[in-house]
Amino acid sequence: MDAFDRLESVITSRMGGDPAASYVAKLHARGTAKIAQKVGEEAVECVIAACGDDRNGLIGEAADLLFHLTILLADRGITLDDVRAELTRRDGVSGIAEKAARPKE
Amino acid sequence: MDAFDRLESVITSRMGGDPAASYVAKLHARGTAKIAQKVGEEAVECVIAACGDDRNGLIGEAADLLFHLTILLADRGITLDDVRAELTRRDGVSGIAEKAARPKE
Amino acid sequence: MDAFDRLESVITSRMGGDPAASYVAKLHARGTAKIAQKVGEEAVECVIAACGDDRNGLIGEAADLLFHLTILLADRGITLDDVRAELTRRDGVSGIAEKAARPKE
Amino acid sequence: MDAFDRLESVITSRMGGDPAASYVAKLHARGTAKIAQKVGEEAVECVIAACGDDRNGLIGEAADLLFHLTILLADRGITLDDVRAELTRRDGVSGIAEKAARPKE
Repeated sequence: MDAFDRLESVITSRMGGDPAASYVAKLHARGTAKIAQKVGEEAVECVIAACGDDRNGLIGEAADLLFHLTILLADRGITLDDVRAELTRRDGVSGIAEKAARPKE
Repeated sequence: MDAFDRLESVITSRMGGDPAASYVAKLHARGTAKIAQKVGEEAVECVIAACGDDRNGLIGEAADLLFHLTILLADRGITLDDVRAELTRRDGVSGIAEKAARPKE
Repeated sequence: MDAFDRLESVITSRMGGDPAASYVAKLHARGTAKIAQKVGEEAVECVIAACGDDRNGLIGEAADLLFHLTILLADRGITLDDVRAELTRRDGVSGIAEKAARPKE
Repeated sequence: MDAFDRLESVITSRMGGDPAASYVAKLHARGTAKIAQKVGEEAVECVIAACGDDRNGLIGEAADLLFHLTILLADRGITLDDVRAELTRRDGVSGIAEKAARPKE
Protein backbone atom coordinates (compact mmCIF):
# COMPACT_ATOMS: atom_id res chain seq x y z
CA MET A 1 0.00 0.00 0.00
CA ASP A 2 1.25 3.47 -0.89
CA ALA A 3 2.75 5.28 2.11
CA PHE A 4 0.47 8.31 1.60
CA ASP A 5 -2.61 6.08 1.54
CA ARG A 6 -1.43 4.19 4.61
CA LEU A 7 -0.96 7.52 6.36
CA GLU A 8 -4.48 8.57 5.37
CA SER A 9 -5.91 5.25 6.50
CA VAL A 10 -4.29 5.52 9.94
CA ILE A 11 -5.44 9.14 10.26
CA THR A 12 -9.09 8.36 9.47
CA SER A 13 -9.05 5.40 11.85
CA ARG A 14 -7.67 7.57 14.69
CA MET A 15 -9.78 10.63 14.02
CA GLY A 16 -12.74 9.78 16.21
CA GLY A 17 -10.63 8.09 18.87
CA ASP A 18 -9.65 9.12 22.36
CA PRO A 19 -7.97 12.57 22.37
CA ALA A 20 -5.94 11.48 25.39
CA ALA A 21 -4.46 8.54 23.49
CA SER A 22 -3.95 9.89 19.97
CA TYR A 23 -2.40 13.07 18.57
CA VAL A 24 -4.70 12.86 15.53
CA ALA A 25 -7.81 12.53 17.68
CA LYS A 26 -6.65 15.37 19.93
CA LEU A 27 -5.92 17.74 17.05
CA HIS A 28 -9.18 16.82 15.32
CA ALA A 29 -11.09 17.52 18.53
CA ARG A 30 -9.64 21.04 18.61
CA GLY A 31 -11.34 21.86 15.32
CA THR A 32 -10.68 22.86 11.74
CA ALA A 33 -9.01 26.20 12.48
CA LYS A 34 -6.43 24.58 14.75
CA ILE A 35 -5.62 21.89 12.16
CA ALA A 36 -5.34 24.58 9.47
CA GLN A 37 -2.99 26.52 11.74
CA LYS A 38 -0.70 23.48 11.94
CA VAL A 39 -0.71 23.21 8.12
CA GLY A 40 0.37 26.86 7.90
CA GLU A 41 3.08 26.35 10.52
CA GLU A 42 4.52 23.26 8.84
CA ALA A 43 4.59 25.08 5.50
CA VAL A 44 6.62 27.89 7.10
CA GLU A 45 9.04 25.26 8.43
CA CYS A 46 9.36 23.81 4.91
CA VAL A 47 10.15 27.30 3.60
CA ILE A 48 12.86 27.77 6.23
CA ALA A 49 14.41 24.32 5.71
CA ALA A 50 14.46 24.86 1.93
CA CYS A 51 16.01 28.32 2.19
CA GLY A 52 18.55 27.04 4.74
CA ASP A 53 19.57 24.27 2.36
CA ASP A 54 18.73 21.68 5.04
CA ARG A 55 17.97 18.60 2.91
CA ASN A 56 17.15 16.18 5.74
CA GLY A 57 15.24 18.90 7.54
CA LEU A 58 13.15 19.53 4.44
CA ILE A 59 12.30 15.83 4.08
CA GLY A 60 11.06 15.81 7.68
CA GLU A 61 9.11 19.05 7.32
CA ALA A 62 7.54 17.86 4.05
CA ALA A 63 6.42 14.70 5.85
CA ASP A 64 5.00 16.84 8.70
CA LEU A 65 3.21 19.08 6.19
CA LEU A 66 1.66 16.13 4.33
CA PHE A 67 0.65 14.55 7.64
CA HIS A 68 -1.19 17.67 8.79
CA LEU A 69 -2.62 18.43 5.32
CA THR A 70 -4.08 14.92 5.21
CA ILE A 71 -5.69 15.49 8.64
CA LEU A 72 -7.12 18.81 7.41
CA LEU A 73 -8.53 17.18 4.27
CA ALA A 74 -10.02 14.30 6.26
CA ASP A 75 -11.55 16.79 8.69
CA ARG A 76 -13.27 18.45 5.71
CA GLY A 77 -14.42 15.12 4.23
CA ILE A 78 -11.81 15.17 1.46
CA THR A 79 -9.67 12.16 0.50
CA LEU A 80 -6.27 12.00 -1.16
CA ASP A 81 -8.11 10.42 -4.11
CA ASP A 82 -10.15 13.64 -4.43
CA VAL A 83 -6.87 15.55 -4.75
CA ARG A 84 -5.50 12.95 -7.20
CA ALA A 85 -8.66 13.34 -9.29
CA GLU A 86 -8.19 17.11 -9.32
CA LEU A 87 -4.58 16.72 -10.46
CA THR A 88 -5.66 14.30 -13.20
CA ARG A 89 -8.51 16.59 -14.21
CA ARG A 90 -5.97 19.32 -14.78
CA ASP A 91 -4.69 17.08 -17.52
CA GLY A 92 -1.02 16.80 -16.75
CA VAL A 93 1.29 19.62 -15.97
CA SER A 94 0.41 21.59 -19.10
CA GLY A 95 -3.03 22.09 -17.58
CA ILE A 96 -1.61 22.73 -14.14
CA ALA A 97 0.95 25.11 -15.58
CA GLU A 98 -1.76 26.98 -17.39
CA LYS A 99 -3.79 27.38 -14.22
CA ALA A 100 -0.78 28.24 -12.11
CA ALA A 101 0.63 30.71 -14.61
CA ARG A 102 -2.72 32.41 -14.92
CA PRO A 103 -2.71 35.57 -12.80
CA LYS A 104 -4.87 34.75 -9.79
CA GLU A 105 -6.30 38.22 -9.42
CA MET B 1 0.61 5.30 -12.35
CA ASP B 2 -0.23 7.14 -9.14
CA ALA B 3 -1.33 10.74 -9.81
CA PHE B 4 1.27 12.13 -7.37
CA ASP B 5 4.06 10.20 -9.12
CA ARG B 6 2.81 11.29 -12.55
CA LEU B 7 2.84 14.88 -11.29
CA GLU B 8 6.41 14.44 -10.05
CA SER B 9 7.47 12.84 -13.31
CA VAL B 10 6.08 15.71 -15.40
CA ILE B 11 7.70 18.25 -13.04
CA THR B 12 11.16 16.71 -13.27
CA SER B 13 10.90 16.44 -17.06
CA ARG B 14 9.94 20.12 -17.36
CA MET B 15 12.38 21.45 -14.80
CA GLY B 16 15.33 22.08 -17.07
CA GLY B 17 13.17 23.14 -20.01
CA ASP B 18 12.51 26.50 -21.59
CA PRO B 19 11.27 29.04 -19.00
CA ALA B 20 9.29 30.74 -21.76
CA ALA B 21 7.37 27.57 -22.53
CA SER B 22 6.84 25.99 -19.10
CA TYR B 23 5.61 27.31 -15.75
CA VAL B 24 7.71 24.69 -13.93
CA ALA B 25 10.87 25.65 -15.82
CA LYS B 26 10.19 29.33 -15.24
CA LEU B 27 9.60 28.94 -11.50
CA HIS B 28 12.62 26.66 -11.15
CA ALA B 29 14.79 29.22 -12.95
CA ARG B 30 13.80 31.84 -10.38
CA GLY B 31 15.41 29.80 -7.61
CA THR B 32 14.68 27.97 -4.39
CA ALA B 33 13.47 30.97 -2.38
CA LYS B 34 10.82 31.84 -4.97
CA ILE B 35 9.55 28.24 -5.11
CA ALA B 36 9.46 28.14 -1.30
CA GLN B 37 7.49 31.40 -1.32
CA LYS B 38 4.87 29.76 -3.54
CA VAL B 39 4.63 26.82 -1.11
CA GLY B 40 4.00 29.26 1.73
CA GLU B 41 1.38 31.15 -0.26
CA GLU B 42 -0.51 28.01 -1.30
CA ALA B 43 -0.54 26.83 2.33
CA VAL B 44 -2.11 30.14 3.37
CA GLU B 45 -4.76 29.62 0.69
CA CYS B 46 -5.45 26.13 2.07
CA VAL B 47 -5.87 27.65 5.53
CA ILE B 48 -8.36 30.20 4.21
CA ALA B 49 -10.33 27.68 2.15
CA ALA B 50 -10.53 25.31 5.14
CA CYS B 51 -11.63 28.04 7.56
CA GLY B 52 -14.15 29.34 5.00
CA ASP B 53 -15.65 25.86 4.69
CA ASP B 54 -14.98 25.94 0.93
CA ARG B 55 -14.71 22.21 0.10
CA ASN B 56 -14.05 22.54 -3.63
CA GLY B 57 -11.72 25.44 -3.01
CA LEU B 58 -9.75 23.36 -0.52
CA ILE B 59 -9.38 20.48 -3.01
CA GLY B 60 -7.97 22.93 -5.55
CA GLU B 61 -5.65 24.62 -3.06
CA ALA B 62 -4.42 21.25 -1.75
CA ALA B 63 -3.59 20.28 -5.35
CA ASP B 64 -1.77 23.61 -5.82
CA LEU B 65 0.13 23.09 -2.57
CA LEU B 66 1.21 19.55 -3.51
CA PHE B 67 2.19 20.76 -6.98
CA HIS B 68 4.47 23.48 -5.61
CA LEU B 69 5.78 21.30 -2.76
CA THR B 70 6.80 18.67 -5.31
CA ILE B 71 8.63 21.34 -7.33
CA LEU B 72 10.40 22.52 -4.16
CA LEU B 73 11.44 18.97 -3.26
CA ALA B 74 12.67 18.28 -6.79
CA ASP B 75 14.63 21.54 -6.74
CA ARG B 76 16.38 20.29 -3.59
CA GLY B 77 17.02 16.82 -5.05
CA ILE B 78 14.30 15.16 -2.97
CA THR B 79 11.75 12.69 -4.37
CA LEU B 80 8.27 11.80 -3.16
CA ASP B 81 9.74 8.37 -2.40
CA ASP B 82 12.14 10.06 0.05
CA VAL B 83 9.11 11.52 1.83
CA ARG B 84 7.30 8.16 1.69
CA ALA B 85 10.37 6.52 3.24
CA GLU B 86 10.37 9.11 6.03
CA LEU B 87 6.67 8.46 6.74
CA THR B 88 7.31 4.70 6.80
CA ARG B 89 10.37 5.18 9.00
CA ARG B 90 8.17 6.91 11.52
CA ASP B 91 6.49 3.56 11.85
CA GLY B 92 2.87 4.31 11.32
CA VAL B 93 0.96 7.14 12.87
CA SER B 94 1.77 6.12 16.42
CA GLY B 95 5.35 7.09 15.61
CA ILE B 96 4.23 10.18 13.79
CA ALA B 97 1.95 11.11 16.64
CA GLU B 98 4.75 10.73 19.09
CA LYS B 99 6.98 13.01 17.04
CA ALA B 100 4.21 15.49 16.37
CA ALA B 101 3.04 15.56 19.97
CA ARG B 102 6.55 16.06 21.24
CA PRO B 103 7.12 19.73 22.05
CA LYS B 104 9.28 21.06 19.22
CA GLU B 105 11.22 23.49 21.35
CA MET C 1 2.61 62.50 12.69
CA ASP C 2 3.95 59.01 13.22
CA ALA C 3 4.52 57.15 9.93
CA PHE C 4 2.38 54.19 11.07
CA ASP C 5 -0.51 56.49 11.98
CA ARG C 6 -0.17 58.36 8.68
CA LEU C 7 -0.29 55.02 6.88
CA GLU C 8 -3.42 54.07 8.82
CA SER C 9 -5.02 57.42 8.11
CA VAL C 10 -4.43 57.12 4.36
CA ILE C 11 -5.73 53.53 4.41
CA THR C 12 -8.97 54.39 6.16
CA SER C 13 -9.53 57.37 3.85
CA ARG C 14 -9.06 55.18 0.76
CA MET C 15 -10.97 52.17 2.00
CA GLY C 16 -14.40 53.11 0.73
CA GLY C 17 -13.07 54.77 -2.43
CA ASP C 18 -13.14 53.70 -6.06
CA PRO C 19 -11.61 50.21 -6.51
CA ALA C 20 -10.50 51.26 -9.98
CA ALA C 21 -8.47 54.16 -8.60
CA SER C 22 -7.01 52.79 -5.35
CA TYR C 23 -5.22 49.57 -4.42
CA VAL C 24 -6.57 49.81 -0.86
CA ALA C 25 -10.17 50.25 -2.08
CA LYS C 26 -9.74 47.38 -4.55
CA LEU C 27 -8.30 44.99 -1.98
CA HIS C 28 -10.91 45.97 0.60
CA ALA C 29 -13.67 45.34 -1.94
CA ARG C 30 -12.39 41.78 -2.41
CA GLY C 31 -13.11 40.98 1.21
CA THR C 32 -11.51 39.94 4.48
CA ALA C 33 -10.19 36.57 3.30
CA LYS C 34 -8.30 38.14 0.41
CA ILE C 35 -6.74 40.80 2.66
CA ALA C 36 -5.79 38.10 5.18
CA GLN C 37 -4.21 36.11 2.35
CA LYS C 38 -2.00 39.09 1.51
CA VAL C 39 -0.92 39.34 5.19
CA GLY C 40 0.08 35.67 5.10
CA GLU C 41 1.97 36.11 1.84
CA GLU C 42 3.89 39.17 3.04
CA ALA C 43 4.85 37.34 6.24
CA VAL C 44 6.28 34.49 4.15
CA GLU C 45 8.30 37.06 2.19
CA CYS C 46 9.63 38.49 5.48
CA VAL C 47 10.66 34.97 6.53
CA ILE C 48 12.52 34.44 3.25
CA ALA C 49 14.23 37.84 3.31
CA ALA C 50 15.32 37.30 6.94
CA CYS C 51 16.66 33.80 6.26
CA GLY C 52 18.41 35.02 3.11
CA ASP C 53 20.12 37.75 5.09
CA ASP C 54 18.64 40.37 2.76
CA ARG C 55 18.57 43.47 4.99
CA ASN C 56 17.06 45.90 2.50
CA GLY C 57 14.66 43.25 1.30
CA LEU C 58 13.50 42.66 4.87
CA ILE C 59 12.87 46.38 5.45
CA GLY C 60 10.71 46.44 2.31
CA GLU C 61 8.83 43.25 3.21
CA ALA C 62 8.26 44.46 6.79
CA ALA C 63 6.75 47.66 5.36
CA ASP C 64 4.55 45.57 3.03
CA LEU C 65 3.48 43.36 5.94
CA LEU C 66 2.58 46.34 8.15
CA PHE C 67 0.73 47.96 5.26
CA HIS C 68 -1.45 44.89 4.67
CA LEU C 69 -1.86 44.16 8.40
CA THR C 70 -3.16 47.71 8.89
CA ILE C 71 -5.65 47.18 6.05
CA LEU C 72 -6.78 43.90 7.63
CA LEU C 73 -7.22 45.54 11.03
CA ALA C 74 -9.14 48.48 9.52
CA ASP C 75 -11.34 46.03 7.63
CA ARG C 76 -12.22 44.40 10.98
CA GLY C 77 -12.80 47.76 12.71
CA ILE C 78 -9.54 47.64 14.66
CA THR C 79 -7.16 50.59 14.96
CA LEU C 80 -3.41 50.66 15.60
CA ASP C 81 -4.33 52.26 18.93
CA ASP C 82 -6.28 49.10 19.83
CA VAL C 83 -3.09 47.12 19.24
CA ARG C 84 -1.04 49.68 21.18
CA ALA C 85 -3.50 49.35 24.08
CA GLU C 86 -3.12 45.57 24.00
CA LEU C 87 0.68 45.86 24.09
CA THR C 88 0.45 48.30 27.00
CA ARG C 89 -2.07 46.08 28.78
CA ARG C 90 0.46 43.28 28.65
CA ASP C 91 2.50 45.50 30.90
CA GLY C 92 5.83 45.65 29.17
CA VAL C 93 7.77 42.77 27.80
CA SER C 94 7.75 40.85 31.03
CA GLY C 95 4.01 40.45 30.54
CA ILE C 96 4.41 39.79 26.85
CA ALA C 97 7.18 37.33 27.53
CA GLU C 98 5.03 35.52 30.02
CA LYS C 99 2.20 35.21 27.53
CA ALA C 100 4.49 34.29 24.67
CA ALA C 101 6.47 31.78 26.68
CA ARG C 102 3.30 30.14 27.94
CA PRO C 103 2.64 27.00 25.89
CA LYS C 104 -0.25 27.86 23.58
CA GLU C 105 -1.84 24.45 23.71
CA MET D 1 6.47 57.15 24.44
CA ASP D 2 4.71 55.33 21.59
CA ALA D 3 3.76 51.76 22.55
CA PHE D 4 5.55 50.31 19.50
CA ASP D 5 8.75 52.17 20.39
CA ARG D 6 8.48 51.10 24.02
CA LEU D 7 8.08 47.51 22.82
CA GLU D 8 11.17 47.88 20.65
CA SER D 9 13.13 49.43 23.46
CA VAL D 10 12.31 46.59 25.87
CA ILE D 11 13.14 44.03 23.18
CA THR D 12 16.56 45.48 22.42
CA SER D 13 17.37 45.75 26.13
CA ARG D 14 16.44 42.07 26.69
CA MET D 15 18.04 40.69 23.56
CA GLY D 16 21.48 39.96 24.92
CA GLY D 17 20.20 38.97 28.35
CA ASP D 18 19.92 35.63 30.08
CA PRO D 19 17.96 33.11 27.94
CA ALA D 20 16.78 31.45 31.14
CA ALA D 21 15.22 34.68 32.40
CA SER D 22 13.79 36.28 29.26
CA TYR D 23 11.66 34.99 26.38
CA VAL D 24 13.23 37.58 24.04
CA ALA D 25 16.78 36.54 24.99
CA LYS D 26 15.86 32.88 24.62
CA LEU D 27 14.27 33.29 21.20
CA HIS D 28 17.15 35.50 20.02
CA ALA D 29 19.65 32.88 21.16
CA ARG D 30 17.90 30.31 18.97
CA GLY D 31 18.76 32.29 15.86
CA THR D 32 17.20 34.16 12.95
CA ALA D 33 15.42 31.18 11.36
CA LYS D 34 13.57 30.39 14.60
CA ILE D 35 12.48 34.02 15.07
CA ALA D 36 11.35 34.13 11.43
CA GLN D 37 9.38 30.93 12.01
CA LYS D 38 7.51 32.62 14.87
CA VAL D 39 6.68 35.58 12.60
CA GLY D 40 5.22 33.16 10.03
CA GLU D 41 3.22 31.33 12.70
CA GLU D 42 1.77 34.50 14.19
CA ALA D 43 0.77 35.71 10.72
CA VAL D 44 -1.11 32.43 10.17
CA GLU D 45 -2.90 33.01 13.48
CA CYS D 46 -3.87 36.53 12.34
CA VAL D 47 -5.27 35.04 9.12
CA ILE D 48 -7.34 32.53 11.08
CA ALA D 49 -8.62 35.09 13.61
CA ALA D 50 -9.57 37.48 10.78
CA CYS D 51 -11.37 34.78 8.78
CA GLY D 52 -13.12 33.54 11.92
CA ASP D 53 -14.37 37.04 12.63
CA ASP D 54 -12.71 36.93 16.06
CA ARG D 55 -12.13 40.64 16.77
CA ASN D 56 -10.47 40.31 20.17
CA GLY D 57 -8.48 37.35 18.93
CA LEU D 58 -7.22 39.39 15.99
CA ILE D 59 -6.10 42.25 18.28
CA GLY D 60 -4.10 39.76 20.33
CA GLU D 61 -2.60 38.01 17.31
CA ALA D 62 -1.70 41.35 15.69
CA ALA D 63 0.12 42.30 18.93
CA ASP D 64 1.91 38.92 18.89
CA LEU D 65 2.85 39.40 15.23
CA LEU D 66 4.24 42.90 15.82
CA PHE D 67 6.11 41.67 18.90
CA HIS D 68 7.85 38.90 16.96
CA LEU D 69 8.37 41.05 13.84
CA THR D 70 10.12 43.65 16.00
CA ILE D 71 12.38 40.93 17.44
CA LEU D 72 13.17 39.71 13.92
CA LEU D 73 14.00 43.23 12.75
CA ALA D 74 16.19 43.88 15.80
CA ASP D 75 17.96 40.58 15.21
CA ARG D 76 18.78 41.78 11.69
CA GLY D 77 19.90 45.23 12.91
CA ILE D 78 16.76 46.97 11.65
CA THR D 79 14.77 49.49 13.70
CA LEU D 80 11.10 50.47 13.51
CA ASP D 81 12.40 53.87 12.34
CA ASP D 82 13.99 52.13 9.33
CA VAL D 83 10.54 50.75 8.46
CA ARG D 84 8.93 54.15 9.08
CA ALA D 85 11.50 55.71 6.74
CA GLU D 86 10.66 53.14 4.07
CA LEU D 87 6.93 53.88 4.42
CA THR D 88 7.62 57.60 4.17
CA ARG D 89 9.94 57.08 1.20
CA ARG D 90 7.08 55.39 -0.60
CA ASP D 91 5.47 58.77 -0.46
CA GLY D 92 2.10 58.06 1.04
CA VAL D 93 -0.26 55.32 0.10
CA SER D 94 -0.39 56.33 -3.56
CA GLY D 95 3.23 55.24 -3.79
CA ILE D 96 2.63 52.15 -1.70
CA ALA D 97 -0.43 51.32 -3.74
CA GLU D 98 1.55 51.60 -6.91
CA LYS D 99 4.20 49.24 -5.60
CA ALA D 100 1.68 46.85 -4.13
CA ALA D 101 -0.53 46.81 -7.21
CA ARG D 102 2.44 46.12 -9.46
CA PRO D 103 2.57 42.42 -10.33
CA LYS D 104 5.42 41.01 -8.29
CA GLU D 105 6.53 38.47 -10.86
